[in-house]
Amino acid sequence: SGQRRRRPLERSVDFPVCAVLPAGGTGERTGLRTPKQFCSVLGRPLISYTVQAFERVSWIQSIAVVVAKENMDLMTDIIQRFQHKKVQVVEGGSTRHRSICNGVRALGEAVGEEEQVMAANRPKVVIIHDAVRPFVEEDFLYKIAMAAKEQGAAGAIRPLVSTVIATTSEGYLDHSLERARYRASEMPQGFTYDVIYQAYQRCTDADFEFGTECLHLALQYCGTKAKLIEGPPTLWKVTYKRDLAAAESIIKETLSRSACIVTGGSAPAATLADALQNAFRALDMELNVTPDLMGDNSKYLVNEWNFIQISVSHPCLSEVEAILTDLDAANRALLHPVVVIWVHLSSLDELSISRTMAEPAAIRDLASAAKLRNILLYGIQLHQSTDTECWERSVLRVAEIMSTLIRDRSPALVGQLLQA
Amino acid sequence: SGQRRRRPLERSVDFPVCAVLPAGGTGERTGLRTPKQFCSVLGRPLISYTVQAFERVSWIQSIAVVVAKENMDLMTDIIQRFQHKKVQVVEGGSTRHRSICNGVRALGEAVGEEEQVMAANRPKVVIIHDAVRPFVEEDFLYKIAMAAKEQGAAGAIRPLVSTVIATTSEGYLDHSLERARYRASEMPQGFTYDVIYQAYQRCTDADFEFGTECLHLALQYCGTKAKLIEGPPTLWKVTYKRDLAAAESIIKETLSRSACIVTGGSAPAATLADALQNAFRALDMELNVTPDLMGDNSKYLVNEWNFIQISVSHPCLSEVEAILTDLDAANRALLHPVVVIWVHLSSLDELSISRTMAEPAAIRDLASAAKLRNILLYGIQLHQSTDTECWERSVLRVAEIMSTLIRDRSPALVGQLLQA
Ligand SMILES: [Mg+2]
Ligand SMILES: [Mg+2]
Repeated sequence: SGQRRRRPLERSVDFPVCAVLPAGGTGERTGLRTPKQFCSVLGRPLISYTVQAFERVSWIQSIAVVVAKENMDLMTDIIQRFQHKKVQVVEGGSTRHRSICNGVRALGEAVGEEEQVMAANRPKVVIIHDAVRPFVEEDFLYKIAMAAKEQGAAGAIRPLVSTVIATTSEGYLDHSLERARYRASEMPQGFTYDVIYQAYQRCTDADFEFGTECLHLALQYCGTKAKLIEGPPTLWKVTYKRDLAAAESIIKETLSRSACIVTGGSAPAATLADALQNAFRALDMELNVTPDLMGDNSKYLVNEWNFIQISVSHPCLSEVEAILTDLDAANRALLHPVVVIWVHLSSLDELSISRTMAEPAAIRDLASAAKLRNILLYGIQLHQSTDTECWERSVLRVAEIMSTLIRDRSPALVGQLLQA
Repeated sequence: SGQRRRRPLERSVDFPVCAVLPAGGTGERTGLRTPKQFCSVLGRPLISYTVQAFERVSWIQSIAVVVAKENMDLMTDIIQRFQHKKVQVVEGGSTRHRSICNGVRALGEAVGEEEQVMAANRPKVVIIHDAVRPFVEEDFLYKIAMAAKEQGAAGAIRPLVSTVIATTSEGYLDHSLERARYRASEMPQGFTYDVIYQAYQRCTDADFEFGTECLHLALQYCGTKAKLIEGPPTLWKVTYKRDLAAAESIIKETLSRSACIVTGGSAPAATLADALQNAFRALDMELNVTPDLMGDNSKYLVNEWNFIQISVSHPCLSEVEAILTDLDAANRALLHPVVVIWVHLSSLDELSISRTMAEPAAIRDLASAAKLRNILLYGIQLHQSTDTECWERSVLRVAEIMSTLIRDRSPALVGQLLQA
């Protein structure tokens, strides 16, 4: 699958690791009504992407998502709808620390005992991560988990983006900090279960109310100095509305890196596929050519997010219908919208035949039905030409249209029959 | 113009203000080959947006853009191409401070004297701003300019996004800073010419090499305590590739707030326009209806970024050609791509007539020519229906297609004749 390709080596982690995702924020800074962790990105709430980032890591056993009481049902629905498997929904507290604490306790109480937590069932390490940092990768989670196990606590840091300054009470510059000596503390952070559990047992109400840093509690109440690990820029937190656009662009880019083109084995289709392959390379996309999606070639059905079906001469949608059926059977469009582009390559003698309304209506109906299953179907009509220059221009135009359809994933344009 | 609407009250600033935009960065953090200030957003380099943000402020007299020697020609081309008027290009130094210093000196030397700067020609206040923070607004520049004049120095601050921590030399947590006492120092910053000029005269080579904060130099060498002013989140700096996507989404949103629909005065077109107006409201867009773009209605030509022309029955492109000509005459698409959507509303009796190839070819040719002038022309075909439910569905679909075309501004889809 697309996820498997991102995981080059299976990490060996021989101790139990769980995660807590505090997701109780109200999202007032985004300027949106919906808290940002529940905002939709390509038709799926942001938090589902973050859950997926943890769920796909084989050595992470369980994920406690902590949400405000009023969002418990919403979160449960999200888990069902996107078929998340490792998640338990935990009710949050009145502050961030109370929420994280609830999550930590819920992980220790996985077998049901309320008070007497059984050590055997506790995870060795707990990773705490923000629900609004969806792009964390396995490599980095591994570093945090290993350092947490060895040191008791570990946290992601990033270089400071701006100079940090101290202000006077009247709002004037007092002094600026020497940038090289300081870092921004980010997420994820990892702790042995004992350290984070004890830190919350021992800390004061004031810590629960006003504290922000788990690392600080571990230091103050357990004497544990956290190991700090420089994280990648992708750890950034979705805070403002513009960050949702940035997140969407990152996800769209990931989904647009390659496409699979199905020729049906016909010679004119194979020629077009070759030409498109070159054109796509210039657009920084990879195009895999295959005669069909059967046997060994069915691998594309589970690997690709974009399919292009070339029909030669007869404007027949049965091949594209077969792809839609296969995608449905593989449950491929569960997490991301899948793009299917039907190309009708018409031969020279068809040029004179004026188009009937049948074809546009057929693709429109097919697209409406597919859209309900998160598959975006578009059509392109392309006329063969013996004029080389004219043909090359057409191929370039088709490639640009395809690349735009794949990158934009616009639901409003499904079912259109575009002209190359 | 679109800019004028953002400027509710003309500020009275009775002293000369100039700006320095250091733009010498190499953009290594974006992961792009092009330095980020020269990256294209909707077909225009980011720095041109920042220049425009200053140029449209009536009380800002001159803008010194400081670029690396190898980018002097590129920057000069940008100024010519986008017809910037208040800009001088200044060659940068080897560090950020040396570049800003060159910009400050260039502003004082505007009359040509090399050594003997004439005080009368100096600006009273210099605003320094990053080339990669294009969304700064007049209101905030005004606050900075006024505070700089009164206090000698002023700077934008923002709350810290993350906790700031001090690290031990071995990479462990030493302590975390109390977040409430500190701020992030951002741009713009303002100085009286005397303060910033003297600060650079007096500072050391080490300051020029390793310093980052102009505010700090003003404090250290002129004893000037900067007034700190909390800025809006829009002051954020375009740093990573994802920030370019965020910037583009902000600009696209600004351009997509409203559209002008031209009915030609026909009754069916006016009915469709009314229905679209309601549908657009649900999509958070305003639709201004007008019979034509003549006389008083020509105001739309200078205010709107999106035009919808409805042609009833006869598929005639002459009306849309007139809009294209008017837009060209007004030089409207100089700074942003303008969207023109041609809607062919065909009557019932045309339904049986199969379409000829003439119409798609005509709009495609028109669109290819318009695209060269930064005008994006799309077509939509809509059939009238006496079935109310069917008609309402079509209107909704048209509104969604229009909204997508306006928001996405995809160059690859120009000239298409889409079906509602
Ligand atoms: Mg990451
Ligand atoms: Mg602003």
